[in-house]
Amino acid sequence: MIGPEIERLIQLLSKLPGMGPRSARRAALHLMKRRDSLMVPLSEAMALAGEAVRACSVCGNLDSRDPCTVCADHSRDRSIICVVEDAGDLWALERTRAFRGTYHVLGGLLSALQGVGPDDLNLDKLAERAADPAVREVILALNATVDGQTTAHVVTDRLAGTEVAVSRLAHGVPVGGELDYLDDGTLTAALRARRPL
Amino acid sequence: MIGPEIERLIQLLSKLPGMGPRSARRAALHLMKRRDSLMVPLSEAMALAGEAVRACSVCGNLDSRDPCTVCADHSRDRSIICVVEDAGDLWALERTRAFRGTYHVLGGLLSALQGVGPDDLNLDKLAERAADPAVREVILALNATVDGQTTAHVVTDRLAGTEVAVSRLAHGVPVGGELDYLDDGTLTAALRARRPL
Repeated sequence: MIGPEIERLIQLLSKLPGMGPRSARRAALHLMKRRDSLMVPLSEAMALAGEAVRACSVCGNLDSRDPCTVCADHSRDRSIICVVEDAGDLWALERTRAFRGTYHVLGGLLSALQGVGPDDLNLDKLAERAADPAVREVILALNATVDGQTTAHVVTDRLAGTEVAVSRLAHGVPVGGELDYLDDGTLTAALRARRPL
Repeated sequence: MIGPEIERLIQLLSKLPGMGPRSARRAALHLMKRRDSLMVPLSEAMALAGEAVRACSVCGNLDSRDPCTVCADHSRDRSIICVVEDAGDLWALERTRAFRGTYHVLGGLLSALQGVGPDDLNLDKLAERAADPAVREVILALNATVDGQTTAHVVTDRLAGTEVAVSRLAHGVPVGGELDYLDDGTLTAALRARRPL
C-alpha cells in the first residue's frame, strides 16, 4: 500500500551505508515531511555533486576543480606525498591540520577477497609523481589492516626505483585510549616504538 | 579542503534521522563512488517523490494518488477507521495485513514540549468522517507514550458527540518477548488483560 515513488525512494535510501529497510523507511518519511526544507535541497545537492565533482587528474581527490583545491594550492609542500585509500581518509587528515603536503588517493586497497588487484589502483600516476626529483618523501597513510599492509608493500615495491623515502604512520596507543582495552599487537608496537620523555 | 558541493551534500545528509557528521561523510563518499548507480537515481527519486507525493485529502496518507490507494480501494471496510500518528505507522500496520479498514493520519501527536496543539493535527477531518453513519468504529493505533495517550484522550473527546465506538490497541507482552525484560507497566497491563486459553 506504499506508492511506487515512495517505495523506490526507500529502496535507494536503504543502499546508503548504515541504513537498513527500517531506517530507510524512517528517512523517507522524514524527507517527505520536510519536502521543501530538506528533500528538494538534498535532491539538488546530489544532482549538483554528481555533475560537478570529479576525481582530480593529479592526485585522485574528489573536487569540482581539476587540479583539486589541495593540488592547486601553492602554499602546500610538494616534496611530500601522503598516500591514502580514498577521499574520506584525505578529509580525515585535512581535519587534523597537521599535514601541509600533497596527497595521492589510491581509490581502494588491494584485496584478494574482493578481487582488487594492483591495476585497479591509481598506482601508475603515483610512480610518475614520485619520479619527480622535487619529491622527497611518500607517507603511506593506509589502514592498519591486512589489506592496508599488503597495499603498503606493493606501493613500496613500486617506488623502489625512485629516490623517495617511504614512511608509514606510527602504530601506538590512540590518544585518550585505555591500555586495558587495547589489543596485544598495538601494545607490542607501542612498547617497541617507545619515545624518551 | 572539501569542495563546497560535497560540503553541502554532507551537511544535508547529516539531517537524516540516525545520521551524524561522520556517517554523513561516509554516505557522501559512498554516493560519490556510485555516482551513476546510486547518487543520480536517488536524486531523481527524491525530486519525483517531492513532486508527485501529496497528503491524501481524505485520510492524510502520503501517496501520488488522491484519494490515496487505501481510500480508493473499494474492497476496504469503510466502517472502521484506524487513527495513526503518521504514514510510517500506517505502513507498519499495512505490512501486518491484519487490517482491512481505512486509516486516518493525524500528522503528529499532541506535545506541550514541542508546542503541538489540537489545531496542528488533522482532527476536523476525522470528526467529519466519523459523523458519517456508515462508520461504526474508530481504532486509536497511537504510541503507548504520554503524548500518545494525551492525543488518544483528545481524539476520544472530539468524537464524543458521534455514534462511533472508540477502541485502542491492546497492551501486553510483545510476541517473542521475554517477561524478564519487560517493564512493570506492560506486565501489569498484560496480567489484567489476561485471556482464557
